Amino acid sequence: MRFVSYVRLGRPSFGALVDGGIVDLARHMPGIDTLREAIAEDLLADAAREVVGRAPEFAMSDVMLLPVIPDPAKILCVGVNYVAHREETGRKEVGYPTYFTRFADTLVSHGAPIIKPAVSDKLDYEGELALVIGRGGRNIKPENALDHVAGYAPFMDGSVRDFQRHTGQFTPGKNFPATGGFGPALVTPDELGDVTSLPIETRVNGEVLQKASLSDLIFSIPDVIAYASTFTPLQPGDVIATGTPGGVGERRDPPIWLKCGDVVEVDVGAAGTLVNRIVAEV
Amino acid sequence: MRFVSYVRLGRPSFGALVDGGIVDLARHMPGIDTLREAIAEDLLADAAREVVGRAPEFAMSDVMLLPVIPDPAKILCVGVNYVAHREETGRKEVGYPTYFTRFADTLVSHGAPIIKPAVSDKLDYEGELALVIGRGGRNIKPENALDHVAGYAPFMDGSVRDFQRHTGQFTPGKNFPATGGFGPALVTPDELGDVTSLPIETRVNGEVLQKASLSDLIFSIPDVIAYASTFTPLQPGDVIATGTPGGVGERRDPPIWLKCGDVVEVDVGAAGTLVNRIVAEV
Repeated sequence: MRFVSYVRLGRPSFGALVDGGIVDLARHMPGIDTLREAIAEDLLADAAREVVGRAPEFAMSDVMLLPVIPDPAKILCVGVNYVAHREETGRKEVGYPTYFTRFADTLVSHGAPIIKPAVSDKLDYEGELALVIGRGGRNIKPENALDHVAGYAPFMDGSVRDFQRHTGQFTPGKNFPATGGFGPALVTPDELGDVTSLPIETRVNGEVLQKASLSDLIFSIPDVIAYASTFTPLQPGDVIATGTPGGVGERRDPPIWLKCGDVVEVDVGAAGTLVNRIVAEV
Repeated sequence: MRFVSYVRLGRPSFGALVDGGIVDLARHMPGIDTLREAIAEDLLADAAREVVGRAPEFAMSDVMLLPVIPDPAKILCVGVNYVAHREETGRKEVGYPTYFTRFADTLVSHGAPIIKPAVSDKLDYEGELALVIGRGGRNIKPENALDHVAGYAPFMDGSVRDFQRHTGQFTPGKNFPATGGFGPALVTPDELGDVTSLPIETRVNGEVLQKASLSDLIFSIPDVIAYASTFTPLQPGDVIATGTPGGVGERRDPPIWLKCGDVVEVDVGAAGTLVNRIVAEV
């Protein structure tokens, strides 16, 4: 099943994708107003049953999509988690996943504009797969970690490179508002199949600039969940972006920087394709 | 005026400190339930007027204090912002403030236990002054930055050093739950006087281990606000911790690590003194 968060007729809601349209789940699940609440109440399986046999109630074009989870309590991002990207950035091997954070206001939905900051011309793409935590937990063991995943979605970890390099900490470069994308939909593990065999490809204006497989991750999805849960309690709806492959714009010769009008696509096979256009900050 | 957030008789509330006791402001300000809401509605001056002439309604010992702002949208922490601390950590001068983030669940109130993680024996103290944003803003100029401050409070940026050094990003070491402290009260700028002349001192079991002045900051309070607001919109109730002086436990010979039963005091003069005892994770 694929779940989306959106605004329709001015009202935030969430629903399931059916035959190219949407079944509005906030209407059919009394007391549950958001996808994050449905996850927290462990109601995604109920939601899927609720949808069976229903026709779409409206079209995708009738809604304004929101990021898959619009208001996660925690957004944790893994850096340098593909060998080719680690090598292109000149970093050494490390024994642990590299974690930084993004604020929720840095993310937009599939189809929404990503904003190139006025103060920088060094906005870079990073295509990724993100996971959304279902059942929360602390000190989760790798062998149980996938039981804590509600689903997956493409993620664009847009990075303002000059600000990212101002100091040793990435925070500023990763937290300009509306510089990342998260969507289009939460794809449940049963719908996705084997996550480790997913292809991942980032295209800018149709040109393939990153191409890898989730099997190339340095730290596997169970490992990044397990490690994060050693230092922070994971809660339903929390987001972990799993890292980007080699081929980022900064490390090309000459570098490629995103400019207004560019279209960035993050295509993660069965997890969906996230598309965003770059616009100027006004 | 000094404002506190607390739970009394099972109900979260906020109030003002008067003659050693508390006036409950949620009771006197209809529709305003939290200190963050009062700040967002620009009602701190109204709240102060509301308190004039009132006797305390109950004692500090009748409430369970919460962190000054229990649920900030953003907690931004400045690293290496005193020369003595920069030098003891062997870091070079940088042209910008170093920013990392903490999640809200990493902070406890004045008087609450700080939890030493079971997985590490390298919990370190960092005494700091934090500020709370009043009026929000983006691209705030340094000369206007103090107009965006609702008030100040001591902050203990407890750091799990081995996890902080797992990779180049500080996130894990700064985000164990209940490893930091924030309180006791929000002290308004008019009550505080000249923030740059505040002394700051961290004591562990009564021994002075950090001692400096806010005049020693590398990046001044207006500068850290201005820089943060270039990459992220600041909102009412957001917290910026301004960095710790030299003398942290990790850089001593031999190192000093916090152990169960230790009492950590962060004394920032007119901004108050934050006291927390270290307990073991169970």
